[in-house]
Amino acid sequence: MREVAIIGVGDTKFGELWDMSLRDLGIQAGLSAVYDANLSGDEIDALYLGNMSAGKFTEQEHIGALISDYSGLARDHIPATRVEAAGASGGLAFRQGVMAVASGMHDIVVVGGAEKMTDVGDTLSTEIQAMAADQQWETSFGATFPALHAMIARRHMHEYGTTREQIASVAVKNHKHGSLNPKAQFQKEIKLESVLRSLPVAEPLGMFDCAPVSDGGAAVVLCPLEKARKYTDTPVKVLASAQASDTLSLANRESLCRFDATTVAAQRAFKMAGLEPKDVQLAEVHDSYTISEILAIEDLGFFPKGKGGQATADGETTLGSKLAVNTSGGLKARGDPIGATGVAQVVELVRQLRGEADKRQVSGAEVGLAQNVGGTGATVVVQILGRVN
Amino acid sequence: MREVAIIGVGDTKFGELWDMSLRDLGIQAGLSAVYDANLSGDEIDALYLGNMSAGKFTEQEHIGALISDYSGLARDHIPATRVEAAGASGGLAFRQGVMAVASGMHDIVVVGGAEKMTDVGDTLSTEIQAMAADQQWETSFGATFPALHAMIARRHMHEYGTTREQIASVAVKNHKHGSLNPKAQFQKEIKLESVLRSLPVAEPLGMFDCAPVSDGGAAVVLCPLEKARKYTDTPVKVLASAQASDTLSLANRESLCRFDATTVAAQRAFKMAGLEPKDVQLAEVHDSYTISEILAIEDLGFFPKGKGGQATADGETTLGSKLAVNTSGGLKARGDPIGATGVAQVVELVRQLRGEADKRQVSGAEVGLAQNVGGTGATVVVQILGRVN
Repeated sequence: MREVAIIGVGDTKFGELWDMSLRDLGIQAGLSAVYDANLSGDEIDALYLGNMSAGKFTEQEHIGALISDYSGLARDHIPATRVEAAGASGGLAFRQGVMAVASGMHDIVVVGGAEKMTDVGDTLSTEIQAMAADQQWETSFGATFPALHAMIARRHMHEYGTTREQIASVAVKNHKHGSLNPKAQFQKEIKLESVLRSLPVAEPLGMFDCAPVSDGGAAVVLCPLEKARKYTDTPVKVLASAQASDTLSLANRESLCRFDATTVAAQRAFKMAGLEPKDVQLAEVHDSYTISEILAIEDLGFFPKGKGGQATADGETTLGSKLAVNTSGGLKARGDPIGATGVAQVVELVRQLRGEADKRQVSGAEVGLAQNVGGTGATVVVQILGRVN
Repeated sequence: MREVAIIGVGDTKFGELWDMSLRDLGIQAGLSAVYDANLSGDEIDALYLGNMSAGKFTEQEHIGALISDYSGLARDHIPATRVEAAGASGGLAFRQGVMAVASGMHDIVVVGGAEKMTDVGDTLSTEIQAMAADQQWETSFGATFPALHAMIARRHMHEYGTTREQIASVAVKNHKHGSLNPKAQFQKEIKLESVLRSLPVAEPLGMFDCAPVSDGGAAVVLCPLEKARKYTDTPVKVLASAQASDTLSLANRESLCRFDATTVAAQRAFKMAGLEPKDVQLAEVHDSYTISEILAIEDLGFFPKGKGGQATADGETTLGSKLAVNTSGGLKARGDPIGATGVAQVVELVRQLRGEADKRQVSGAEVGLAQNVGGTGATVVVQILGRVN
């Protein structure tokens, strides 16, 4: 396999973007990554796109061709492929792009992720997101994502003594980080009390425990590492990209308190990279709900099982500590346009590893990890990226 | 890049399968391919799945995880990835699987395709299929797929003198082939007069010019060529897998009478394989409409532009001639469960190249080609497979 580098990144602002369609989001993100990589469009060999449900959100499937067309790439008839795995769509698209370069099939590959969610109301949006769960055994009985995550939270509290305040502290931290990110949907700090008193969604989770409904796009440009210096002085190396699956429904799992797919994907990724959790200075993890981040930092091996809540409340994952988690603001504050999220995580890691993260820069960042989740942990992809010195 | 072989194939019957859900279709096809490859499930490293719109057809996204789960593969946490490009979803999933093996990322990869279409009525089905076209510039103005293909047919008749009878002869041939395929949705020969007199759908195209709405699944197992003999005495080699895109809407094309993405994907594939059109003995092409097959055999380089209708009417693509096209019955007679189609094409080629196609066997088949189309030619993938002697 050839070694793969990231030579360009780009994104839109995340939020309720009433004046932008899905195609606008995809194109703006893609073009900004292409400019960042100092590429002319002619050099692009292939496009991968992560998107969960444009069919339901915007009545349009065939998104690869859509974005290829409207970004002008169809002129050169480049291959354009959409990948879907619910919330992990972006991370999986990135992994396909890495394989396309690693295999020698393509040299310059653009990986984008985009979702246009706000054209439908909140209720329909919740229904659409619930299509990531098991329609036959979960959704058809009325379970939506907040409900499933509320069960996870309750059980984690029961088994490990995790407190409501510890769970809420995830939101406080991520809003603090988001306040330093000019592309974030929410750039405002919030207090612990505000999270605790926020409108109940599915108890114990309130409004401020849930990632928002968002529009947004993100993109990166990949090429073989040996050619990367031709385009940029600061290539970032893909040290690992690993993926794992689990049962679609929570009911078939041994435990509600862990996502085994995260643990397995992380083990595979650390093995590929020849690294351990202690070698990572920053991680973007999939905090679609506050409790999700606690599971993530435990399952990834950063903290022992049951200690993630305490670690977060103690500030051990806040910017400035040994391990900074979700410096972008995470899904909670940066926003969660589903298909874009996994790619946006990579964009944040690259900015940090290049030393371009401005007020939220992690000093001495050498290795970053991204964990992107589909459903309640039925698909997980873990990327590990490193500075090239 | 490592060389890649197909070591197992499987499929369900295609048709209106009222007693099978999407998960049943995926699992039955996948398991039959796994048995055919003499594999235990433990050896499988990754799963790719082609599916166009389970979100709209069955209210379920996250199909990779669904099939992985219900086939028992989630137990080993193997990566499962869904790929979507409308009608080309299956062919693209196959191409991703090939890259996963070629790159060295995975050894044993199962590629499946499935679609459950008949749970919604014909009208909704037509609407869902139309999401493969440009929602903003085609569908929202009332254009559906039959209408777009009718325009293509009219223009081809106008420019090249292609006759209504020549177009209809595609359906007659494919039903003849389908009558020899026990897995086909329609196993009945039809007369030219029946096609000409069939209920008008979008003139000049009638009911018998259109592929049916279908349920079905198909799957193949891939591995590195050097390991293939461990599993089978009749491995089939992937000589090429190439993909190209074009504008999503017909309005932005230079001509209605050709799919440039077919021509470009074919050129790329023939270059990879070191072959020419004359080296191919059988082809599975994307005859979602009768006129589509005429475009396909011209754009692939088998016949000069404008001569495809005459060639078909003259029997030059019928079983027994130098080039047999759609021996399976094609989309028209075998059926078109959208996400399954591109994989089913590969299944048919493999059966032919192994000499296992029974009454429809192409004698001396050495090289086969599959052309899988998304939308009205916005995505095309071409696979070339060869016997290993």
